[in-house]
Amino acid sequence: MADDSIAIVGGTGDLGYGLALRWAKAGRDVYIGSRVALRAEEAAKKIRGQLGEHARVTGLANEEAIHRAWIVVIAVPFSAQISTITSLKEKFQTGQTVVDCTVPLEAAVGGAATRTLNLWAGSAAEQAARYLPPAVHTVAVFQNVPAPILQELDHDVDCDVFVCGDNPEARARMKPWIEAISNCRYIDGGKLENARVVEALTAFLIGINRRYKTHSGIRVTGIPAGT
Amino acid sequence: MADDSIAIVGGTGDLGYGLALRWAKAGRDVYIGSRVALRAEEAAKKIRGQLGEHARVTGLANEEAIHRAWIVVIAVPFSAQISTITSLKEKFQTGQTVVDCTVPLEAAVGGAATRTLNLWAGSAAEQAARYLPPAVHTVAVFQNVPAPILQELDHDVDCDVFVCGDNPEARARMKPWIEAISNCRYIDGGKLENARVVEALTAFLIGINRRYKTHSGIRVTGIPAGT
Repeated sequence: MADDSIAIVGGTGDLGYGLALRWAKAGRDVYIGSRVALRAEEAAKKIRGQLGEHARVTGLANEEAIHRAWIVVIAVPFSAQISTITSLKEKFQTGQTVVDCTVPLEAAVGGAATRTLNLWAGSAAEQAARYLPPAVHTVAVFQNVPAPILQELDHDVDCDVFVCGDNPEARARMKPWIEAISNCRYIDGGKLENARVVEALTAFLIGINRRYKTHSGIRVTGIPAGT
Repeated sequence: MADDSIAIVGGTGDLGYGLALRWAKAGRDVYIGSRVALRAEEAAKKIRGQLGEHARVTGLANEEAIHRAWIVVIAVPFSAQISTITSLKEKFQTGQTVVDCTVPLEAAVGGAATRTLNLWAGSAAEQAARYLPPAVHTVAVFQNVPAPILQELDHDVDCDVFVCGDNPEARARMKPWIEAISNCRYIDGGKLENARVVEALTAFLIGINRRYKTHSGIRVTGIPAGT
């Protein structure tokens, strides 16, 4: 398996579907996973309907999907993160990069989407790492990307994407996947613990979305071109 | 006193001096405060040296400076924040807007500038509000602005500036002051508690500065023009 394929656990949700669509559009092999294979197949079919039958997107049960790629994106709601990882724990393979996208919004416990919960692990990504097998590399990515924009192919996504993780090679592995999405830029976010900031930023941007009635994203200024 | 003057407590430090320089350049009345009036006067003289003798910048003891304007910026290091506010507490006036810029970097207790401390109040800005008289409006601003760039007048500052505070009028009051700085844009950051995110972002940007050898800033994408 080369790095031209990716699996998306929870690939039928807003973020997962949007990522699958963008990557399929870029000509990558995408394996959409869902608890129910049929729902994943429906999502794959919908993407082929949007992009044409040449799109290389396949719907599978989560267990099957994560066997097909060295990069596995976990794009489930925060409230389902631990149970999803626990149920798949035996299926991950040594050397896989696991991409956690979850944000611990207070909304998960009936509160506001403009605030986050303080997690014992420090961040949802560090929580994921605690439940994942030690033989995989956990990275935290895509928390700040506006999911509704991802799903609209005629819209530029127009934002930077921070990658936090303790393994530098696993971080760098995400660069081509980020750059395959229209007008997204990879930013090395350093250690996994920095996901604490990036996840909190999502709640802050949700507040901005409400005040400005928009789908906001984030950019870092002052980054030299070509880095 | 109209809103064309501003006082900067700690106006001889990197951030305070940079802000004083930019606002004096924009033709505003700037009162630089310092614990030692002489040092404030020296900073004011240095700014007049850079901008010309017409620049309306005055150096004073902190106690004097905060009497001269309805907006008072606190630009001291985090480790001096509480003692500075406590020492000036009797001098603030009802209706003043007090701008806290401090970030609780772990460096204040001998740790890293890429991490923040968890404060009992939630953020440095909320901590400031606890020590300030209730008759002033506390806002949190300028934590993410690259201070070295502020001080180089030939450089575009090029970033968004979030304003968090519980009083909407006090937040809006900062807009012209932010827009007086080259290529800075005001972003309504909502409640004061949101400063938790903005302050943490500073530590994250310091990490980016190290990895990319730059002075980074932040921008929000998707904000409609003219808002």
